[in-house]
Formats: sequence, structure tokens, C-alpha cells
Amino acid sequence: MIELHAWPTPNAYKVSILLEELAIPYLVKPVDITGGAQFDQAFLRINPNGRMPAIVDTEAPDGPLAIFESGAILIYLAEKHGRFLPTEPHGRFAAIQWVMWQMSGLGPMFGQAFHFQHFAPEPIAYATDRYVREAGRLLKVLEQHLDGAEYIAGDLSIADMACYPWTVVAGMLGLDMDAFPALATWQARMAARPGVARGMALLEQHRMTAPRLDEAARRNLLGSRDA
Amino acid sequence: MIELHAWPTPNAYKVSILLEELAIPYLVKPVDITGGAQFDQAFLRINPNGRMPAIVDTEAPDGPLAIFESGAILIYLAEKHGRFLPTEPHGRFAAIQWVMWQMSGLGPMFGQAFHFQHFAPEPIAYATDRYVREAGRLLKVLEQHLDGAEYIAGDLSIADMACYPWTVVAGMLGLDMDAFPALATWQARMAARPGVARGMALLEQHRMTAPRLDEAARRNLLGSRDA
Repeated sequence: MIELHAWPTPNAYKVSILLEELAIPYLVKPVDITGGAQFDQAFLRINPNGRMPAIVDTEAPDGPLAIFESGAILIYLAEKHGRFLPTEPHGRFAAIQWVMWQMSGLGPMFGQAFHFQHFAPEPIAYATDRYVREAGRLLKVLEQHLDGAEYIAGDLSIADMACYPWTVVAGMLGLDMDAFPALATWQARMAARPGVARGMALLEQHRMTAPRLDEAARRNLLGSRDA
Repeated sequence: MIELHAWPTPNAYKVSILLEELAIPYLVKPVDITGGAQFDQAFLRINPNGRMPAIVDTEAPDGPLAIFESGAILIYLAEKHGRFLPTEPHGRFAAIQWVMWQMSGLGPMFGQAFHFQHFAPEPIAYATDRYVREAGRLLKVLEQHLDGAEYIAGDLSIADMACYPWTVVAGMLGLDMDAFPALATWQARMAARPGVARGMALLEQHRMTAPRLDEAARRNLLGSRDA
């Protein structure tokens, strides 16, 4: 059984989408980041960095296996089940390089943009502009890459699952989303998949309360509580 | 042959260290980010995101294979040569999760700290404090993880190669490095490896000029030209 230690945020949705697309059983262990549960000793033994999501594969060879960082979890589950990540090098690294691009760029820079646009205690025009501009640049890179393509790396892969939840919140940055038509087509293609929809609905499935979702979603966007 | 498209920065050093530790032939193709060469059309065909390093494996199965994002390159080369990344799940994902931690946290947050501490056109105390504090927190996580350990994930792995070049520049952030004794011991262990030393000396090997190194190193620290 896979234990998914998570709270509803974009980085957690990456993993719940993959688990739903794999159609394997898993157990959600809520990590209430609005209450600081990511710093509980029990969770820090899973991830010393104090960020959810994390997983524990209770049935891994050689004993239970804990993994942190959403990008690492995506690769683990894809490899274990032999889906959504090709084994031949061209397809495999087309996917992995875009997972890395999401991990190093799209996620962290969106997180900083949200922070300065919505949550910093004082308006700081320089910082807000720096990160919103970088967020727009990153979306433009993805837009150009998706033009004429069905998915990011050939067939549906963990690259799509890594990027999709972050692009869903892009509109909240005040960017002109009409500038990204190929992105919008891809988003619609993703949203229409029942597995993606179920993954994005992780919250409701697990009866976390709506006010908490709102708070968690807001706090997530600081980019300081998930990874 | 591996073509390494790079300029001397921490993210490029990760790859040059691995290539030297693998002791395989490679050809450096300088991407002079001080002159904007990462936006040349020829390079954008390798990485549409306009960031070095990137590689082209000219002898990959099914034709030349271009890969961008340093974390993806590390996994590719480690898998191709069967070194520095275990195949059994516990060892494998111990390494991959720390590579991801470096890609999503240590690199991006150090980059932002350097930017606001050294390069922003105006001093912004809130932003500087935000990122220098996060850089210190990340180093503390690594310090605690390395306490009593020889390497980050068992034997020497791509996790060490991903983190080391960034920790080398940590002193420039004004953090009290005496607070990280286990980190210092690990850094000395890494520095003593001839492959690591050769990888970190990529610049000199390839006769790029010293003034350019200084400028490139400075610019890299913006976190906006490498990935």
C-alpha cells in the first residue's frame, strides 16, 4: 500500500493525479500544513526537510520505503508500475527533463510570484515584477513547446502531471491567459481525464473541510510548505 | 561522445563533476551566458528554456539525444554508465529525492538569496532576509542529514554532485559556516576527490578567461541563467 502524506496543494496534486491515473490503492495521511503538521517529529522522520507531499511504500522490496520531493515520488511510482515514463532514452528523458523544469522553475518561481503578489506584508514592486515576469516567461516556454503537441513528452507522462496543477493556478497571477492558447488546449485535455479530475479532487475525497482547503491552497502558494 | 553545453556555474559543475568521476570523454561547447549565448537559436533547439547546462549524446540509441536541466542530465549519465545511482529502490530514491531537493530548493533559493544580497538594483531587506534565511534553513537540513554520514545517500552518488557546487558558494551569503561542521567535513571529502576537483576546474581546462569566470559566476548567482 502507498501512504500519501499530503495536504491539498499543487505539489500534492501531482502525486494524487498519478496515483489515480495508475488506478492503484493508496491511503491519504493528511499533513495539515495550516497547523504545522509538516514539522511533527513523525513526519520529519519521513522528510527531514519538513515539506509535504511524501509517500511511504509499505510493501517495497527490503522493507517500507519513504520518499520525499514530489518529483522523486513521480519517478518512483512511474518506474514501479511501468507507466507514464518510457524506458527508452529519448522518451524517458523528454519526460524527466520537463519534470525537472517544473521542479526547478515553474514551481519555485510561481511560488515566489504568489508570495510577493498576495502574501508579503508590504508591497514590493521590484520583487513582484521579477517573479510574475519569470512566471510569464516560463508559461511562454511551455506554450511554445505544446503548440501542435498532444502532451509535453509524447504520450501522457509524469511531465504533464508535474506541470498541470501549477498551470491551473496561473490565472491567479494576473497574467493574460489568452496569450497561451496551446496551454489552454492541453489543460482542457488534462482536465477531461477522469484520473486527473479525481487527483485534483483529493480534498473532497478525503473529507478535508473546504475552509481548510482554501487556507491550505493560499498558504501553499507561498511555496514554503510543499515540495 | 557527450557534448556538454555549459559555462562555469554551479549547475554546470554538477555535470562536469559527474563526467570527470565517470572518466568518460566529453567535449565542452561553451555557452557564454555573459553574452546571451543561451538565447542563440542553435542553443534554443537544445533547450527551449534558454538555460545551460545541456548535453547532446551524439551516440545515443536511435540518434543524437539532447537533454536539458542539470538534474535530468545527472540521472541520464548515471543510468547510462550504471554508476553513482543505485538500481535497488531504497538506494536509488535516497539519491533521487536529494537531487530533487537540490533542484527545487537549494539551487533556486540560493539563487534568489544571491540576487537580493548582491545584485538587485536597490536593497530590499524583506526579500534578502526571506531568502538568506531559507538558504540557512536548507543548509541546516543538509547538515543534520550529513551528521555521521559519509555521503548524502550511502555511497557517493549524483545527490552529492548536485549539492556540492552550491554549498561551495554558501559562504558568500554571509551565513556562519561554523554552524555546519558535518557539511564542512563532507565538503572536504568531496574536494579531495580528483574527479570533483577536475569537474570544478572546468573553466581552466577549457581556457575560458578568468575575468569571464568571475562575471559568469556572478551572473550565475542570479539564478536566472542556469538550470
